[in-house]
Order: sequence, then C-alpha cells, then structure tokens
Amino acid sequence: MISPDLTNQFLAIVDPARWLDKKEQLFCYAYDAFVEESMPEAVVFPETTEEVSQILALASAHQLPVTARGAGTSVCGAPIPARHGLVICFSQMDRIIEINTKDRYIIVEPGVVNADLQAALAPDRFFFPPDPGSMNMSTIGGNIAQNAGGPRCLKYGVTLDYILGLEVALASGKVITFGSKNIKDVTGYKLAALFCGSEGTLGLVTKAILKVVPVPETVKTIMATFKDLDDTATAVTDIIGSGILPAAMELMDQLTLNAIEDKAGLGLDREAAGTLLIEVDGMAEACDKQIRLILEKLHAHHAVHIQEAGTASDRERLWTARRSAYGVFAKLAPDIISEDVTVPVSRVPEMVRRIIQIADRHKLRVGILAHAGDGNMHPMIPADKSNAEEWERVMAVFDEIFRAAADLEGTLSGEHGIGLAKAKYLPLVMDPGTIDFMKTIKQAVDPDGILNPGKFV
Amino acid sequence: MISPDLTNQFLAIVDPARWLDKKEQLFCYAYDAFVEESMPEAVVFPETTEEVSQILALASAHQLPVTARGAGTSVCGAPIPARHGLVICFSQMDRIIEINTKDRYIIVEPGVVNADLQAALAPDRFFFPPDPGSMNMSTIGGNIAQNAGGPRCLKYGVTLDYILGLEVALASGKVITFGSKNIKDVTGYKLAALFCGSEGTLGLVTKAILKVVPVPETVKTIMATFKDLDDTATAVTDIIGSGILPAAMELMDQLTLNAIEDKAGLGLDREAAGTLLIEVDGMAEACDKQIRLILEKLHAHHAVHIQEAGTASDRERLWTARRSAYGVFAKLAPDIISEDVTVPVSRVPEMVRRIIQIADRHKLRVGILAHAGDGNMHPMIPADKSNAEEWERVMAVFDEIFRAAADLEGTLSGEHGIGLAKAKYLPLVMDPGTIDFMKTIKQAVDPDGILNPGKFV
Ligand SMILES: Cc1cc2nc3c(=O)[nH]c(=O)nc-3n(C[C@H](O)[C@H](O)[C@H](O)COP(=O)(O)OP(=O)(O)OC[C@H]3O[C@@H](n4cnc5c(N)ncnc54)[C@H](O)[C@@H]3O)c2cc1C
Ligand SMILES: Cc1cc2nc3c(=O)[nH]c(=O)nc-3n(C[C@H](O)[C@H](O)[C@H](O)COP(=O)(O)OP(=O)(O)OC[C@H]3O[C@@H](n4cnc5c(N)ncnc54)[C@H](O)[C@@H]3O)c2cc1C
Repeated sequence: MISPDLTNQFLAIVDPARWLDKKEQLFCYAYDAFVEESMPEAVVFPETTEEVSQILALASAHQLPVTARGAGTSVCGAPIPARHGLVICFSQMDRIIEINTKDRYIIVEPGVVNADLQAALAPDRFFFPPDPGSMNMSTIGGNIAQNAGGPRCLKYGVTLDYILGLEVALASGKVITFGSKNIKDVTGYKLAALFCGSEGTLGLVTKAILKVVPVPETVKTIMATFKDLDDTATAVTDIIGSGILPAAMELMDQLTLNAIEDKAGLGLDREAAGTLLIEVDGMAEACDKQIRLILEKLHAHHAVHIQEAGTASDRERLWTARRSAYGVFAKLAPDIISEDVTVPVSRVPEMVRRIIQIADRHKLRVGILAHAGDGNMHPMIPADKSNAEEWERVMAVFDEIFRAAADLEGTLSGEHGIGLAKAKYLPLVMDPGTIDFMKTIKQAVDPDGILNPGKFV
Repeated sequence: MISPDLTNQFLAIVDPARWLDKKEQLFCYAYDAFVEESMPEAVVFPETTEEVSQILALASAHQLPVTARGAGTSVCGAPIPARHGLVICFSQMDRIIEINTKDRYIIVEPGVVNADLQAALAPDRFFFPPDPGSMNMSTIGGNIAQNAGGPRCLKYGVTLDYILGLEVALASGKVITFGSKNIKDVTGYKLAALFCGSEGTLGLVTKAILKVVPVPETVKTIMATFKDLDDTATAVTDIIGSGILPAAMELMDQLTLNAIEDKAGLGLDREAAGTLLIEVDGMAEACDKQIRLILEKLHAHHAVHIQEAGTASDRERLWTARRSAYGVFAKLAPDIISEDVTVPVSRVPEMVRRIIQIADRHKLRVGILAHAGDGNMHPMIPADKSNAEEWERVMAVFDEIFRAAADLEGTLSGEHGIGLAKAKYLPLVMDPGTIDFMKTIKQAVDPDGILNPGKFV
C-alpha cells in the first residue's frame, strides 16, 4: 500500500506532474494487449537513471511491488501489475544518446519507440533489425525485456543478438552496467543476456548499447498464394531446408487474409487457402538469384499466384496487409488472443494441421499468422470473454495448442514471452529443476521479490 | 585433499582406466596455453552425463574444487586447476548425437572437437561458424565456456549466437536443461547465455543444442599488403565503416608475417609493414561485387600488392599462413603471451599505434595479429619467463596495453576470456557493482564455490 506519507517521499524524487494516483488515471496502466488486468496504485514517469534508482530504493525499503512499463503492447500480460503497487513507465526516458554507425552501435534510453529509432537511423542507411509488428508503439525497453522478434528476425536474429551493453537499476536501486561498445566482448559473465527476456523481473533497463546494421542495397518482396494450406507450409519447410535464408517469410491462412481484405480492400486473393509473403535482401544480384530459387520451390509446391512488388509502394502495400492482420482481427470480436507457439521449421506443416483440427473440434474460428521461416506461429482467436462458455472453449483450444507444440518439440513462445498468460504452461516445456534454477537466480537478484511479482518466476 | 577413501568412492562411479592420480600423469592437466600452471590431485574422464552428475555430487559433499577441461587450449589459464582438486576432462564425451540440417540444429557432447564437428557437417554442406584458430584441437565445451570466436565471427557472430540449448550439471550434481531445438525461444530466462563464457565457474556443460548454417555458395579470398601499418588499419576501419561486411578480415604486422615466412616459405612479401587477409562469402555475384568495393578501398589506402586466391589450394595457403602465426611465434622464445584486447573498430589504427609505442618503450618485440574487422587484436610477445627482468617488462607492456584499450573504450578480451590471466584487470573495464553482481550470481549458483575456484569470480 502506498500511504500518503510514502507518496510524499516519491514526490520528493519526481515532480508531481510525473506521478499519477487517481483511479481514472490508473486504468490505462492496468492492462496490456492481453485479456487480463490489474490496477496499479500509482504510476511514475522517471526522466533519469538517478530517479529510477531513487524510486527503486524507496520501493525496496517499503517492499512495494514495482512493474516496469514501456508502451504496454505486450500480448502476454507482462507489464500488468499483478500485485498492484507502483508502475514505472519509461515513456519520458526516450532520448537517443548516440548514433555511431562507424562502430555500428547506438546508445538509447529505454523509452525510445522502436520506429523512432529506425527513423533516426535511416539517414545513415542503418537499421535496428528487431521489427515487432508493434514497432510503431513498442519501446526498446519493452523489446529488450521481452527479447522481441519480428518478421525480419528470420535472417537477422532477435533483440538479444543486438545487445552490446546495458545499464540496469536493480531492485535495491543500485545501478550497474554490463557489456561495452565492442562487438566482441567476453569480459566476465554475459549478464546483459540474463536481463534480455526477463520481463522486468530482474532489473530495470535504464540505458542500452545496441548493435545496428547497414540497410541492404536491395530488397525484393513477393507474395504467393496457394489452394492448399498444407502446400503453403510445406513450401516454407522446403525453402528453409534447402539453405535459402530470406529476410522474412510470413504465412497467413484464408481467414486472416479475408479479414484483412474486408478491412483494407487491397485486392488480395480471397480464395487462397494460404499466402506467403517472402522478402529477400542484400546485393541486387544475390536477391535476383534467391528469388529465382524461391520461385522454383513455390511452383513445385503448387503456388497458384505469385506477385512481385515492383515498386516501394507495392512493397509497402503487401507489408501493410501483413502488419494490419492483428488489428483487423482484434475488431472481429470484443477480445482476441494471439498466441506465439514455435516449432522446429520442419514441423510447421504438422503444427498448422493440428491447430486447425483443434479449433474445429472446439467449433472456434482460428486465424493463423506465422513468422513461418523460423517456425514461430501466431494462432489468433477472436472471441468474447464475457461469454463464459465460449471463453472456456478458447482456453481449451490454447491448452491443446500448447500441448501440440510441446509434442512437436516446440516451445510456448518464440517472441511474445510468458508473462501472466503462459506461466502455468511452463512445465510443459521446462523441467522442474530448470524452473527452480530460474527461481534461484530471481531470489539472488531480487531477494524481496519486488520486481514484477506474480509472473512466471 | 582427495583421500584414498574418497578416491575409492570416485572409482565406484568411473572405471579406474578413466581416473588418473599419479604425479607424472597429472602434469599434462596442470597447464593450458597460458604461462602459469597448478597441479590437480586427480583427473577423471566421464563418459556420460550421469557420471558427471555423480562425480559433482561427491565432490560437492567433500567441498572438493572441480575444474572442467576440454582440450586445454585456453590462452588465459581458464582450465588451470588453481586450487588443485579434481579436473574433469571431457575428451571421452565426444559423441555427435544428432545432425538435423532441415531444422538447422545439431546436438553434441562437450568433448567433440570443433574441426570434427565441421567435418561431420561438411557432407550436408553446413557448418558451425565459430572457428577459433585452435579448431583442430579445441572442444565445443571449451568453445562454449569461453564463448569462442574466430576469423569468420566478423560476419557470423560468436559461439553464444549459436547456442539454442544446453544441458548443464550444476555443482550439486543436479542436471538441468535450458532452451530447445527452436531457433526462436523466449520461454523464461536466457540461462544458456549465462553459462556461455562463464569459464566453467557456474556449471559443466554435458550436452549442447547448437544452430548450424549452410555453407555459402562462393568464397573469395584476397591478401593485400601495405607499406604502412597505419594505412592497413585505416583500410579496415574504412571498409567496415562503409557498410561492407566481409566474412573475415585479418591483420598481420611485419614481424608476424616475417615469422611465418621464415618458417613456411610461402613467398609472402617480407617488406610489407601490414597485411590484410580478407574473405567474403555468399552468392557468387554478391562476392564479386563486394570484392570490387573492397579493392577500391584498398587502393585508396595505398595497398601495394593485392593477391587473389584463384583456387581452393591458393586460399588454403593464405589461411595456413594466418593460422600458423601463433605456432610460429611460439617458437621464437621459450614462452609466448598472446593477448586479446578489443576496441571499437574505428579505434583500431590508434590502438595499433599505441601497442607499437608501448612495446618500443619497453624494448620488446611485439607481433600484431588481429581479427581487425571487429576490433579484436592479438598482440603477441615472445619472451623468456625465466629471465625475470625481461618478464617484468613483458608484464609492464601488457599492463599498458590493457589500459590503452580501456582508454579507447575497448575491453580486455574479445574471445580468449579472463581466466587467471586478466582477473586483476577487470576493474579497468567493469565497475565494482558489476563485479559484485557477478559474485552474487556465482554465489547463488555454486554456493560452496567448488567450480573452477581462484578465477575471475
Ligand atoms: C499488434 C501487435 C503486434 C506485435 N507484434 C510483435 C512481434 O512481431 N514480435 C514481438 O516480439 N512482439 C510483438 N508484439 C508484442 C509486444 O509489442 C512486444 O513484446 C514489445 O517488445 C513490448 O514492448 P512495450 O514497450 O510495449 O513493453 P510493455 O508491454 O510495456 O512491457 C513488456 C515487458 O517489458 C517490461 N519492461 C518495459 N520496459 C522495461 C525496462 N525499461 N526495463 C525492464 N523491463 C521493462 C515490462 O515490465 C513488461 O514485463 C506485438 C504486440 C502487438 C499489440
Ligand atoms: C593456437 C591457438 C589459437 C587460438 N585461437 C583462438 C581464436 O581464434 N578464438 C578464440 O576464441 N580462442 C582461441 N584460442 C583459445 C582457445 O582455443 C579457446 O578458448 C577454446 O574455446 C578452448 O577450448 P578447449 O576445449 O581447449 O577448452 P579448455 O582450454 O580445456 O578450457 C577452457 C575453459 O572451458 C572450461 N570448460 C571446458 N569444458 C567445459 C565444459 N564441458 N563445461 C564447462 N566448462 C568447460 C574450462 O574449465 C576452462 O575454463 C586459441 C588458442 C590457441 C592455443
């Protein structure tokens, strides 16, 4: 409980304009893009590492739960303050401190929005590879805490692969730094990696040194449609299995494509059971050759229609279709759950089949959207949480989907994280000793358990 | 101390043929490729995870120091049993359990030699990118524990980037697993990353799931020589700064090149003050274009002689020259220290200058060998440890080199690790809070401190 006296102590650290504790103000910080919610008692917006440190020291002294928040776009409930307490929202710590393309690194505060960072890098023809669908809103701090991915992570890897160094405020308020500006650095434990993907349960990121990459000379984008979803999935497996590595390889099923088309009227092929959006990048000559090889594979798997983006605006149109999928789907019903199971890529066709069978059996619509090239699948179910009977079926479907993924040697999450949504499923893919080991680390680093309590660890 | 009774308990776990405790047998396990040594009391060669687990449980019960060993090629003293006790040598756990190129992963035991793994992958035209100079001897377990790099890590990244999952035996003997066969997996903390680079101080790797990569279609290799070492270094900075990313970019100074030439008689240009060995890979057309761009840069920086490897055997010859450098250098004097400082790539020219000045001032020969594209430099000093006065100068040189690297925002190690060699220099690049934090983790994971005690943490 934050007493008036404690509030005053916080207000000695931050300006009252950066402190919210009225109920109507707090609502917005009770939820993310998952279906649950839990109210914080107050929200604070620090502007400096020093403030974060002081806030944590004070919270620590009062054993007050603290949950970090970026933009709240998490889809697994990660930033929901499950045990109430204080939310530290990083939106005011959004400075880009240094861009050094010669040495291929940047230094940023955690509240920088992913797309703003991309825009700042563009004039130098560099980019930061992680490109979550939420990139126009989500923050670098959230990307780090969730180890975010995105379409082009197929070729470029996920957020973890781009962290060179971090400044982190621990639960006690102590601030420590890991890593350096050096691309290669094996000086001591790889502690930055421990914080990446830890969902704000070990420490709060106050600054990050990130690796950036030159924009490739050329990008080529094609969209291919198939009569059969199984053919679509098999084409993915075959292309990746043959050693071609596109920058992105996104799969959409018929339901998803039609939902987009209803909304956006892009002239997409409504009859297609499966669609692949494939992008290659690099030097022009290499792109042409990769596209040739990919086309051969697509034809071999009975693609019915292949469309190449001739211009930048054509390309933008195809990606807009892909990116709008979640938003469009979210409008089909009062609630939506977008899941994130991942399987080894050769298992994608089987996983697609199983997802459809499971949803059919429970008489629910499921849309499938997948970063298919790395086996990362987002089955989405639009439904109404207030309809208890339907909601129970939704839960049953996801329960079975998680089990199917585990059965195919897959995992619960490729990029969205565990948060509140999947904590109870951890034992499906993690043995008890490993879960205990995570608790050992959590206990050592945050002994009072004030950081994002009530989550997976 | 390992009493006769304790020995018998160990011999109930492993066959006596896999247990050494005679002094003359133990010598070989007292050192690595660094200049210090410390005798173990016994060496054991487990064949299974179960045996490793039992050995650790027993050692733990007796608070016996345990130091893992792969091939002992570390150059920082990491596998030296500083506090004596037991060495667990993994050379008998050398099975390649699964190769799955469709899903781009392999499963191996820790004792597999890096080059043997490459050979096993070759028929499928796949490879494991980390390629330390020691690849013909060093083991995957050692590569993981040191987060090893190598020439082609410039483009492909280091060992950490290829770990999908690990099986680890903890100090207590408990065996836990992290990660999965999935390329993307954010299910819980990234614990595999914590063990990578931890130099056997947190747990012993008993199995690894590693990502593998298709062999590129084409490789092109060129060697360029320069009259001026500064031009050589500036060419590196300029090529990388312009966004070209070769697979490898190795720099050698005159001393190093001449040492190789003395030994191998390859017809290298003895007059060259600096030499670059540059390799690009990928699709043929893209290689040609990259080479064209690189040649422009080389000419702009006054390369005097550029030689392209026309055939596979030409290429092998150039790489043999590069790879033999350490061995050749090691023969110039009774001892050799090869260091591993790293600086942001734009600082390479300045760092090269400083290394030379420092060595000159102390009247010592220094050879410079560098994975220059990522700023990772190996200054090598051949000397005689038994000559106390000279050895003091050697130590003074490295002391100043570390300080120079820190001054240029570099770090102590790009790939060789800290081990015994550089523990005392950690405070140059790491603040006390971070060092404490490493100790917190160590204490939580190995509370009795039996794993590789006496090292950097
Ligand atoms: C439409 C849509 C599309 C999406 N597409 C993708 C996708 O393609 N790939 C993908 O990976 N994800 C995707 N997501 C999920 C989400 O956007 C990502 O997880 C994103 O990284 C969250 O960033 P955020 O700033 O919104 O963080 P939040 O949701 O606010 O917080 C996420 C977690 O990070 C922690 N956190 C935030 N800031 C800090 C900090 N400074 N220090 C420590 N912890 C912190 C929070 O406590 C919380 O646990 C999508 C979400 C939506 C709604
Ligand atoms: C000529 C030469 C060239 C080299 N070139 C490079 C290079 O280009 N790049 C580079 O990165 N390094 C290089 N090295 C250094 C060294 O080869 C690497 O660090 C290598 O990874 C060590 O492997 P190893 O099997 O010899 O391990 P060892 O030297 O036996 O052990 C290294 C560390 O790993 C630990 N360890 C071993 N096995 C396990 C296990 N199963 N579980 C937990 N911990 C374990 C040991 O306790 C020790 O701390 C070079 C060394 C030499 C001599």
